Amino acid sequence: MAKDFPTREENYAQWYNDLVIKADLAENSAVRGCMVIKPYGYAIWERMQGALDQMFKDTGHVNAYFPLFIPKSFFSKEAAHVEGFAKECAVVTHYRLKNDPDGKGVIVDEDAKLEEELIVRPTSETIIWDTYRNWIQSYRDLPILVNQWANVVRWEMRTRLFLRTAEFLWQEGHTAHETREEAIEETEKILDVYTRFAEEWMAVPVLQGTKSPNERFAGAVETYCIEALMQDGKALQAGTSHFLGQNFAKAFDVKFLSKENKLEHVWATSWGVSTRLMGALIMSHSDDNGLVLPPKLAPTQVVIVPIYRKLEQLEEISEVALKIKKDLEKHGIRVKYDDRDTFKPGWKFSEYEFKGVPIRLAIGPRDLENKTVEVARRDTLEKEILHIEEIDIKVKNLLDQIQKKLYQRALNFRENNTHVANTWEEFKDLINNQGGFVLAHWDGTAETEEKIKEETKATIRTIPLDMKKENGKCVYSGKPSQKRVIFARAY
Amino acid sequence: MAKDFPTREENYAQWYNDLVIKADLAENSAVRGCMVIKPYGYAIWERMQGALDQMFKDTGHVNAYFPLFIPKSFFSKEAAHVEGFAKECAVVTHYRLKNDPDGKGVIVDEDAKLEEELIVRPTSETIIWDTYRNWIQSYRDLPILVNQWANVVRWEMRTRLFLRTAEFLWQEGHTAHETREEAIEETEKILDVYTRFAEEWMAVPVLQGTKSPNERFAGAVETYCIEALMQDGKALQAGTSHFLGQNFAKAFDVKFLSKENKLEHVWATSWGVSTRLMGALIMSHSDDNGLVLPPKLAPTQVVIVPIYRKLEQLEEISEVALKIKKDLEKHGIRVKYDDRDTFKPGWKFSEYEFKGVPIRLAIGPRDLENKTVEVARRDTLEKEILHIEEIDIKVKNLLDQIQKKLYQRALNFRENNTHVANTWEEFKDLINNQGGFVLAHWDGTAETEEKIKEETKATIRTIPLDMKKENGKCVYSGKPSQKRVIFARAY
Repeated sequence: MAKDFPTREENYAQWYNDLVIKADLAENSAVRGCMVIKPYGYAIWERMQGALDQMFKDTGHVNAYFPLFIPKSFFSKEAAHVEGFAKECAVVTHYRLKNDPDGKGVIVDEDAKLEEELIVRPTSETIIWDTYRNWIQSYRDLPILVNQWANVVRWEMRTRLFLRTAEFLWQEGHTAHETREEAIEETEKILDVYTRFAEEWMAVPVLQGTKSPNERFAGAVETYCIEALMQDGKALQAGTSHFLGQNFAKAFDVKFLSKENKLEHVWATSWGVSTRLMGALIMSHSDDNGLVLPPKLAPTQVVIVPIYRKLEQLEEISEVALKIKKDLEKHGIRVKYDDRDTFKPGWKFSEYEFKGVPIRLAIGPRDLENKTVEVARRDTLEKEILHIEEIDIKVKNLLDQIQKKLYQRALNFRENNTHVANTWEEFKDLINNQGGFVLAHWDGTAETEEKIKEETKATIRTIPLDMKKENGKCVYSGKPSQKRVIFARAY
Repeated sequence: MAKDFPTREENYAQWYNDLVIKADLAENSAVRGCMVIKPYGYAIWERMQGALDQMFKDTGHVNAYFPLFIPKSFFSKEAAHVEGFAKECAVVTHYRLKNDPDGKGVIVDEDAKLEEELIVRPTSETIIWDTYRNWIQSYRDLPILVNQWANVVRWEMRTRLFLRTAEFLWQEGHTAHETREEAIEETEKILDVYTRFAEEWMAVPVLQGTKSPNERFAGAVETYCIEALMQDGKALQAGTSHFLGQNFAKAFDVKFLSKENKLEHVWATSWGVSTRLMGALIMSHSDDNGLVLPPKLAPTQVVIVPIYRKLEQLEEISEVALKIKKDLEKHGIRVKYDDRDTFKPGWKFSEYEFKGVPIRLAIGPRDLENKTVEVARRDTLEKEILHIEEIDIKVKNLLDQIQKKLYQRALNFRENNTHVANTWEEFKDLINNQGGFVLAHWDGTAETEEKIKEETKATIRTIPLDMKKENGKCVYSGKPSQKRVIFARAY
């Protein structure tokens, strides 16, 4: 297991990139900006998907699938959407290749030009609301609570594995409601789902809030988000939930006959999280020894490594190890017994440490005599010797402890890196020298927000939902403000 | 529930299309050839995915994700692949839109032309083998047993929901092996997985065999397939598993150091099933009353409908119904209690019949008195009155029975529609007037195969694995043949 990669201190960006590649999570592909998600990385993503999907279903949502392609003209239908949304999209213009007459491979067949170009979906509001028009006639057809798991493409010039890639995987929920209140309730319900998922599964504490108008989703009336803080003091937006008002219903002419027998436009929400969460997960917990995974999302929660010199020792150890494996599996724990003879125990130790397996058990000849097992936890790197009889219960409890500990550690980090700035000097000093979240008063104008961004690269990450009112003065303009907002540099 | 759709007898193609749309499985989208998979259809697909995914994992496979786009030049690297594979592909030529200077929406930004066009994957052998080159150095890196769940695009001029769409969902397995034997073993193992899935989950009997060279996957040394027979007597290819030899390893220069310390090309397989299976499922079991679903794949296995006049009756009935629901759920049965007051029982009966829910329970005031429930099964439309005490065990058994019955019915249909042709006259008569599978001798030449296709539209569906040797004469050319093959017209 190669560990020749920089520490976080030395070069955080390089540390992250090397970690992703060397831990076999993902890699760059032959297609610029597109990544390959490797089996180990994908296994983590599958666990994320599974947990989120269940939470969506438990809150009444169903899955569906809409086309990958969107007719170009659809983008112009919702004015704010087309204005605000980045136009870096993959454009399909032809539908056929042909053999190169020169005999050198294939070329695009110019006779097969599309009448209207198709855009590879960067997000699906337009095609979905075009579809909903036929699904919705009366209030009886509402609400529609649909989610889709899909790939989307946003052409990015500067990409980073998981954090910013041209193609990424995500889920996008698109719901339709009778009333404004119901749609807002849905937007907030999903924000809670995202929060619970981030905190309970990923062990990543997040702030809940809304975005400033500047940072709102193009076409949204209000964008809610969850924001997490990474170990380098930069913020990462981990999920968004948009209240879309009647904007898309108006753009795509989606009306329903209300209970009062009136024709009204439908109210909408959309919400999504993506493979970007993998980046948040990795950066929240990992250390200079490699990946650290919360047990709930670790594909392998416990690895058992036999320590032996002779092959007959291995047999004896295997018997005990397989018994332990079975006992642990009865508790629903995901266990791997690595008895490969092609690698030495030391190599295996370092491999699983690097890959973030939460608990490692080692069993040697002496352990057989003493009926003991060496237990090592990845988060603290602590080891202890446990009696074999108690191993299943202890390991089960330890997994719970590690899950909680990782959350608490990340929460402590965030608290230690959240500062209050009352003056412009303080603000600049914090942003430039400390990083982290900076709580500051803001006058509420896009102008000030822009200027702060220009001068410090910090943006308003969120206007926290739970922030109490407080009279103050904008840290930049000095104008009156009633509430602090969260600033940070961000991914 | 609108049932104004033709019978299978009247117009099979229309029956299928109307069924798919009216049962809320899928519909055409605004993008030519691309479908929307609606929540009810997607819920069935999700169950298929879940079962298949578990079978893949149980046989040692892991999931990963590769890019949606493939550089155009990759297609020319494997000669047979580029020659044989349809060139109807979606081609991405630009990566940016811009506002139309005329102020009318957006146009393609001609400055953002890609140096090399990207093809939306029609299948992923090329990009995956380009990736494997870096994953494989030694025999220790083998085998690679990777699957991906993805969307693919093959531009089709004439599309049919689920059966043939420009974009479809599928899984594609791509494995890499040390030896020819191991790769062939893998190809056959997957064929067995597909067979078990088709027969045990979908209740669709299939024939296992290989394809004639003509019908082989472009770039494969051997293509194995499972073939099913639809109710209109046409065959449907339900899954394929390809032994690719060293073709892609050679094209993409993927070598490994063997145990004997020799540099060798890697052996490959690929295999896939798609949302086409939805078409096979629908056409195998459904009838003139609508969809019929095998219990194992039905999103709702049992629906309970209350029969009442007054609201206080509903309360009493609900109490009993919810108790039954809970009891059934203890057995892992998926139950829906439909107590909506906005629809009448008759409407609900017809709705669930149309949507293929395997078992319907109805409870009215008289049932309360008698402690009975009316049980109706979708497959035979039979009804019986059961005592409430025995309902959970009986329903559980009934679901098993229905699953088996559907399989047996489909198997009987196939057997009744499999015929032997010994002369060209017999052959033509069977293909033109009876349909179904026709077993006939074939001289093994592509020429004869072509001619038979031209004259009858029948193709060799498969060369069955279990067909015994038998000396005979080709039904078309009269030349000697040692084995019968399966001919049919096909989807």
